[in-house]
Amino acid sequence: MQKQKVLINGERLKLTLEEFADFGRTEKNGVTRLSLSEEDRLARNYFRSCCESLGLEVKVDDMGNMYATLEGIEDKPPIVIGSHLDSVKKGGRFDGVFGVLAGLEVIRSLVDHKIKPKVPITIANITNEEGARFEPSMMASGVLSGKFDKEKMLQSTDKDGIKFGEALKSIGYEGDEANRLREASAFVEIHIEQGPILEHENVNIGVVECVLGMCCYEIEVTGESDHAGTTPMSMRKDALFATNNLITEARAKLQKLDNDLVYTMGRLNVYPSIHTVIPNKVVFTLEARHKNPATIQKVEEIVHSLTQSPNHEGCEIKATKLWGRDTVWFDEEVVNAVEQATKTLGYSYKRMVSGAGHDAQFLQSYIPSAMIFIPSVNGKSHCEEELTSWEDCEKGVNVVLETVLSLLSK
Amino acid sequence: MQKQKVLINGERLKLTLEEFADFGRTEKNGVTRLSLSEEDRLARNYFRSCCESLGLEVKVDDMGNMYATLEGIEDKPPIVIGSHLDSVKKGGRFDGVFGVLAGLEVIRSLVDHKIKPKVPITIANITNEEGARFEPSMMASGVLSGKFDKEKMLQSTDKDGIKFGEALKSIGYEGDEANRLREASAFVEIHIEQGPILEHENVNIGVVECVLGMCCYEIEVTGESDHAGTTPMSMRKDALFATNNLITEARAKLQKLDNDLVYTMGRLNVYPSIHTVIPNKVVFTLEARHKNPATIQKVEEIVHSLTQSPNHEGCEIKATKLWGRDTVWFDEEVVNAVEQATKTLGYSYKRMVSGAGHDAQFLQSYIPSAMIFIPSVNGKSHCEEELTSWEDCEKGVNVVLETVLSLLSK
Repeated sequence: MQKQKVLINGERLKLTLEEFADFGRTEKNGVTRLSLSEEDRLARNYFRSCCESLGLEVKVDDMGNMYATLEGIEDKPPIVIGSHLDSVKKGGRFDGVFGVLAGLEVIRSLVDHKIKPKVPITIANITNEEGARFEPSMMASGVLSGKFDKEKMLQSTDKDGIKFGEALKSIGYEGDEANRLREASAFVEIHIEQGPILEHENVNIGVVECVLGMCCYEIEVTGESDHAGTTPMSMRKDALFATNNLITEARAKLQKLDNDLVYTMGRLNVYPSIHTVIPNKVVFTLEARHKNPATIQKVEEIVHSLTQSPNHEGCEIKATKLWGRDTVWFDEEVVNAVEQATKTLGYSYKRMVSGAGHDAQFLQSYIPSAMIFIPSVNGKSHCEEELTSWEDCEKGVNVVLETVLSLLSK
Repeated sequence: MQKQKVLINGERLKLTLEEFADFGRTEKNGVTRLSLSEEDRLARNYFRSCCESLGLEVKVDDMGNMYATLEGIEDKPPIVIGSHLDSVKKGGRFDGVFGVLAGLEVIRSLVDHKIKPKVPITIANITNEEGARFEPSMMASGVLSGKFDKEKMLQSTDKDGIKFGEALKSIGYEGDEANRLREASAFVEIHIEQGPILEHENVNIGVVECVLGMCCYEIEVTGESDHAGTTPMSMRKDALFATNNLITEARAKLQKLDNDLVYTMGRLNVYPSIHTVIPNKVVFTLEARHKNPATIQKVEEIVHSLTQSPNHEGCEIKATKLWGRDTVWFDEEVVNAVEQATKTLGYSYKRMVSGAGHDAQFLQSYIPSAMIFIPSVNGKSHCEEELTSWEDCEKGVNVVLETVLSLLSK
């Protein structure tokens, strides 16, 4: 070994993760900590006090984003480690919060080792990544990167009619626009994979190259509702039968495109959904994700071909694009730094893609960014069963620390 | 012609149908007259006064069934003409009420022609055929025929928590058990077809031989919910994909059984039905109807084979029988009387089956019964568009009258 490796304190990381899981812990050991809720307020307050007790300066911007900064030797753009403290309803103890507390543990370790970094290190808690209470998801990183309009976001309303802007004020986290994250030398987000690949392949670390591009369509099939007992099969226009044909057709075509393509018909509603009535309408979503835009283009062609399907059972078929996004490629230099850190630490790793969206994909538009994945047990997330072993958590944060150290040494 | 044909008054029939459509008429010219509602109470009161003004005796039994009787020369079991005054929510102007008003028009015509029948003629309004407010459907005929337990039925509760028994009292139609229809020489129910066959084949009258036997299953497919973006296709247990395979498989097998078999997957729910989440559960119904019990038996075997399908996509498949019923064959003599009446009148007719359930199928268990169908425009029923031409209505009631006259002459 050329030098004594600086490592994080795994026991302290575990303890801190457990402390934060108390803010909204559910009966089944999950977490409900919706954005700007009382649980979120308490978690924010505790995060702030943890940071302040380390001597960090904590700033809040006009979207409620929190930035806790360890001074650097030089007053240059910081290296930012961040993610989000909010969760979905009955979510897990790792999604989001892990990436924020990874930053905390990195700075605690730097302080332990009396390392004063060359440039400032900032921990960022980005507001409302989940969009579970206020749509859309990745709201605040969307505003930071100019994708979303702030004034519109302030008007976003939860199911009780409370506006995002009001909620932000009421929990005391409406800060100053001047505090927004405007420039940084790097943004590193560590996150649970939310998929089964790392566990399945028995790999410690995912070095994330990109967030997948996608398209999402709504397909509406309109037939006729008739009595299930009195209408001969040949005289029906059964919207469910037609939908069944379309899904079969779509799957047959999609599975030929590319092994890495993922596609899901996740939302499907049948009308009127009465056992004695032939369905007159089915509405379902078809979304697909792939890193290659040409493959997404082929998916879109397949969706359009469905509207002309010969297997329509007398029904009308309409497809509407709900949204799409291009693949976001992370910064090569930061991604390489992550990969090198993993190698330095001797952990197994895999270059991979993110199928899920994350704040880093928006921040990449103006900050060189990268993401690190750690394994999710059974690939589960957004549920109370969400789990990552403490050992994998520790390894992940060591990779963040090593990445930061290597970026500092440049 | 051997004798002057006694015919009904079509204009009066139309007028009366329109009068009754006012009790619960909807904006789009349909009817909402749920059982024991205020609209039902008003319709019942008006029906009673129409009957009383004809000199009929009106009795009400303990299930709220109404019986209006024209005295016969002999005090023998009556010939009963009946159906129901209640409708589904946003139903049509013909379903049910037509069969009651057919009885009224028959008696009005007998009175017009000063025909005193050999045996009494009773018009019956059977309570709660639809089951739209209080389940189950065909409730009161079920009690009359001993299929349903009266005390349980009285406890049946609507969505506002009101019990059938309370509602019956509150509209003033809780009568005496002694008034129940205990014996009759025949029961004749005329009803709209609720299917497209008569119109499609351009036939005036359906001579109904039976009400189809059926079975209804609930099939539950359980997979796993994972993230739509992060879970490779090969590692999914998609309950919707499995369901899609099962429906395809079921349809392929069912369509080989018999051309007359009807089968419907009417109710289908996907969980959690979010576009970014792979469905972990689908629950759907499969019901099938056919006159031949052996065919229904084959359907049940197909349903059971689905639970062992090789196309399960890693999901578990469970099938639960919700209910079944045997085919009810109507009384040959009464059915023949209907057929003969149709011939006598020179109307086109077709011997057919009823795919839908009706009170007559229960009453047949102790009263020789038959049903008559008239065409439904586009086969529509249980909706505001429900329509039968006035001409077809008139022909239908003429068949009832002719049938009654022929039964009287025996």
